[in-house]
Amino acid sequence: MIPAHAALAAKQALVSYEYEPAPLRSMDVEIEISHCGICHSDLHLIDDDWSVSKYPLVPGHEIVGTVVAAGDGGAHPVGQRVGVGWQRSACLECEQCRAGRENLCELQTATCVGNHGGFAERIRIDGRFAFALPAALDAASAAPLLCAGATVFAPLRRWNVTATSRVGVIGIGGLGHLALRFLKAMGCEATAFTSSPDKRDEAIRLGASDAVSSTHAGELRSQAGRFDFLLCTVPAKLDWIAYVNALEPNGVLCLVGAPPGLLQLPASQLVSKQRVICGSDIGSPGAIREMLAFAAEQRIGAQIETAPMSEVNAALQRVRENRVRYRMVLEN
Amino acid sequence: MIPAHAALAAKQALVSYEYEPAPLRSMDVEIEISHCGICHSDLHLIDDDWSVSKYPLVPGHEIVGTVVAAGDGGAHPVGQRVGVGWQRSACLECEQCRAGRENLCELQTATCVGNHGGFAERIRIDGRFAFALPAALDAASAAPLLCAGATVFAPLRRWNVTATSRVGVIGIGGLGHLALRFLKAMGCEATAFTSSPDKRDEAIRLGASDAVSSTHAGELRSQAGRFDFLLCTVPAKLDWIAYVNALEPNGVLCLVGAPPGLLQLPASQLVSKQRVICGSDIGSPGAIREMLAFAAEQRIGAQIETAPMSEVNAALQRVRENRVRYRMVLEN
Repeated sequence: MIPAHAALAAKQALVSYEYEPAPLRSMDVEIEISHCGICHSDLHLIDDDWSVSKYPLVPGHEIVGTVVAAGDGGAHPVGQRVGVGWQRSACLECEQCRAGRENLCELQTATCVGNHGGFAERIRIDGRFAFALPAALDAASAAPLLCAGATVFAPLRRWNVTATSRVGVIGIGGLGHLALRFLKAMGCEATAFTSSPDKRDEAIRLGASDAVSSTHAGELRSQAGRFDFLLCTVPAKLDWIAYVNALEPNGVLCLVGAPPGLLQLPASQLVSKQRVICGSDIGSPGAIREMLAFAAEQRIGAQIETAPMSEVNAALQRVRENRVRYRMVLEN
Repeated sequence: MIPAHAALAAKQALVSYEYEPAPLRSMDVEIEISHCGICHSDLHLIDDDWSVSKYPLVPGHEIVGTVVAAGDGGAHPVGQRVGVGWQRSACLECEQCRAGRENLCELQTATCVGNHGGFAERIRIDGRFAFALPAALDAASAAPLLCAGATVFAPLRRWNVTATSRVGVIGIGGLGHLALRFLKAMGCEATAFTSSPDKRDEAIRLGASDAVSSTHAGELRSQAGRFDFLLCTVPAKLDWIAYVNALEPNGVLCLVGAPPGLLQLPASQLVSKQRVICGSDIGSPGAIREMLAFAAEQRIGAQIETAPMSEVNAALQRVRENRVRYRMVLEN
């Protein structure tokens, strides 16, 4: 049995819960979890905001731990420190999977959607979706790399953001603060867009070259034509017209979270400057491995608060109240 | 004096009109016009639909002719056959110009916006925005390449559409029919989306591998996940959600005309499959030269109707009534 913390119904506090894991298959590993980050997606799942949750629901998909059992497929040896992110499996046979884009597989499953996640002592999972953690990475601050880190790193690489790119990061939270750290390490000047006045100075400390208010319309509009690449980490309805105008010709606005409602903007804004709007969805296993290697080389981890796994409800509450700078990590 | 045809006010029939051209500058050429295509943009300018028109207005920006006078800058020799498209000038000093993206220059001017265009016997223009026409090209059917051809060719190249790409062309008119011909010549299977039942067979003859009704919701929706690249040549409000769904993961919807009103679609459609929406604006001089060379090599021209320049009003009327297959070209 695996001791865990589960929501028994939507919007409920988590309670202690045990479950029998599925049999260990050839490529599976069982991981003794040392740390698990709390992502806003965990709150959405607990609350069934996306109508996909199944209860009992064990959240958690920013997992770090050590392999304690492994099938005979050789995915990872016992004793290996690994991390697990949002994705738990893919078909590994479709065009996307075979092209190394398993994150776009139609048949992918998620670590804690219909499966039990990382707010637990252990997890059994396909070892091909567990990633060896480089020794240089600290387990606690590496946990958020597995979801938040991969989600911001993958589009920076896919869209060829380089040291000379002019980049803006919209929203300085769990994802955005990691984007600033990655960009700084890439030698790239990045501008932080934040609605929190107190995060402006923090953004500079995190590596931003400057910070702009995302709620002051004049300040936002004064950014017209400045950016090659805008990474939007905020799943909220924003002033899309102002952000698209902030792109220079051929510039790209990339959304890594889906705001509610509709994107609405004049097509002429895209045509006349050849601007691009796109989305990016977590990161492929290949992107996660690349990100972990870069994070290790550059000593990048999340800025975290930690709490004992047993105090998961209090920790969730701090996340709900937006009080965490910048990621809460539960520790076993 | 240059004899021309001009609208004296918005929505008026054109009348005979003469004007004194500006002095011939060092890089200028004077072109004796043999042919000029009629683009829908000419109608929008005549009607002042974009509130940028100045009258008297001589439309026409798909120009082919022969250099009859040239400044000492050596842009083209007298006797050279050249073509002129939408763009008349750029600053040639900004970052965009210096990167070969003169079509994105903030200071660019258009052939017949605030300047007199190609519905005339001659035109004086900066020779750097006139393009030597390869000998293999027929003057009449090459004229539409200068605007319509460049507008569809440039994004195919910029977005790396190749022979194995799965491409859809939305709207089979002046632009779309040239896109089908280019794609066929590139070895690429292209699907035509058209609202005109009679254009379905024509689209196949133009090079499409199949044709889909853009107005039959079921047929459109059945295309889900099929395309790497959708080129939208229709400046009309479409079922954006259906078209974005027709993209496979990482697929690109590229607009080359700006539909009225707002693009409206759920951001989740972009995020979950990493889809891209973008715009493309005419073509740079470099893209136009590349397109003309490819068109010459592959013997690609527009499918045209011709009319004498003196019958410009009747010709415009046929364009207004959408009766032309697929481009009207005026002949001097």
